[in-house]
Amino acid sequence: MKNVKITLAYDGSRYDGWQKQGNTENTIQGKLEALLSKMEGRETEIVGAGRTDAGVHARGQVFHVKLSGDKSAREVMEYMNQYLPADIRVTEAKEADMRFHSRYQAVGKKYLYCIHNGRVSDPFKRKYQYFIPEKLDLEAMRQAAGLLAGTWDFQGFCANKRMKKSTVRTLYEITITACGDEIEILYHGNGFLYHMVRILTGTLIEVGQGLRRPETVKEILEKRDRQKAGFTAPAHGLFLLEVEYDSLFN
Amino acid sequence: MKNVKITLAYDGSRYDGWQKQGNTENTIQGKLEALLSKMEGRETEIVGAGRTDAGVHARGQVFHVKLSGDKSAREVMEYMNQYLPADIRVTEAKEADMRFHSRYQAVGKKYLYCIHNGRVSDPFKRKYQYFIPEKLDLEAMRQAAGLLAGTWDFQGFCANKRMKKSTVRTLYEITITACGDEIEILYHGNGFLYHMVRILTGTLIEVGQGLRRPETVKEILEKRDRQKAGFTAPAHGLFLLEVEYDSLFN
Repeated sequence: MKNVKITLAYDGSRYDGWQKQGNTENTIQGKLEALLSKMEGRETEIVGAGRTDAGVHARGQVFHVKLSGDKSAREVMEYMNQYLPADIRVTEAKEADMRFHSRYQAVGKKYLYCIHNGRVSDPFKRKYQYFIPEKLDLEAMRQAAGLLAGTWDFQGFCANKRMKKSTVRTLYEITITACGDEIEILYHGNGFLYHMVRILTGTLIEVGQGLRRPETVKEILEKRDRQKAGFTAPAHGLFLLEVEYDSLFN
Repeated sequence: MKNVKITLAYDGSRYDGWQKQGNTENTIQGKLEALLSKMEGRETEIVGAGRTDAGVHARGQVFHVKLSGDKSAREVMEYMNQYLPADIRVTEAKEADMRFHSRYQAVGKKYLYCIHNGRVSDPFKRKYQYFIPEKLDLEAMRQAAGLLAGTWDFQGFCANKRMKKSTVRTLYEITITACGDEIEILYHGNGFLYHMVRILTGTLIEVGQGLRRPETVKEILEKRDRQKAGFTAPAHGLFLLEVEYDSLFN
């Protein structure tokens, strides 16, 4: 028996998200488990580092799986890329310590939100960028982003009202870069709550549109009130970029 | 009556090419004519600068159309972008001289062929890049490209065996650039024959794979023999980038 750490990229457009659900097999986890179960000749479960919503993409999602076959990690990767649909690709596979757990041992994550702030939407990126034709005020957005970085209770930016566990997270940094009419918002933190990146993004967009002042984000953090935060930005602009682990597990 | 010059971008993935065909409406030209006929309230035909094959994309295709309604060029663009599918976008529309003809007055065209020369194909670009995992020899490809630039009879790079018109064209330049594992081949010429860019690309790829020497392209030009040229590279890596006109019509 070996423990394999697998990194993958996927276009989330036609899937119902990462997590396996009762009545649908159309999830990334479902596709992966079906294939690995076939490879192993027995029911095989995988554990992902994070659950991406329906329509959200990934460039560096990570899961671990316990395998008993005699394929090397490299052979597992080749097998998977041979049989997976072209919108899911394994980019790395390596044998890990038996104690490696993709979720528990993750120490940080990076998410990227992509906006196309142009005149006309781009046919080639329409599934990977949120199109906003009205010019956004990047300076105001950066000001709000600066106020959000740090260790806070992010309950106000969480779609789950009944979180039993702590809603305190550390956002190391929010970096907003513009290249031509493309805007990218990079979120780097130690963990993210349900819909947190999309609500943060919706709030920053409202700041950029002049619909709210940058300082209003402080009130959302203080009041921990979802009603005070912005809209939930659409899934198709969001990418899970990277899951970080201690060097021990890298 | 006015003559409108329209520039558009489209993702060719799900279309049967540009040109309207007998039994299918699933062409770019078909979609555009159906919409413009509805807008005009009468049968309306358009004339495109070039015919892209099924699956080929465009960033700067151009057509002209004679319109009798009272919409301005800008309003025509807005109307079209409101009703066209998201994978076809008008990027510019302007009123042109009544004598402007998108095909006859084109003095040059630029095509871009995109290759992903990486380990694992990219789920986000799989429809817009030809994936070749074996490392290509760019220097050899550039050498062959240098031999192809110029004014030649390109019959050997044409899929149409019974061309009645001249098959002499001028290739101003073929520029091969690499950025990471992405290779782009830019073709700039005064005109292109049927499948010419895809056969040129297939030939350059064979040079890059070491399957033929760069000098062999001279023989194809001299013998004008399609059999001596390389394979037809797949449509999905190809983009019609730009159609050039004399400043009079720009």
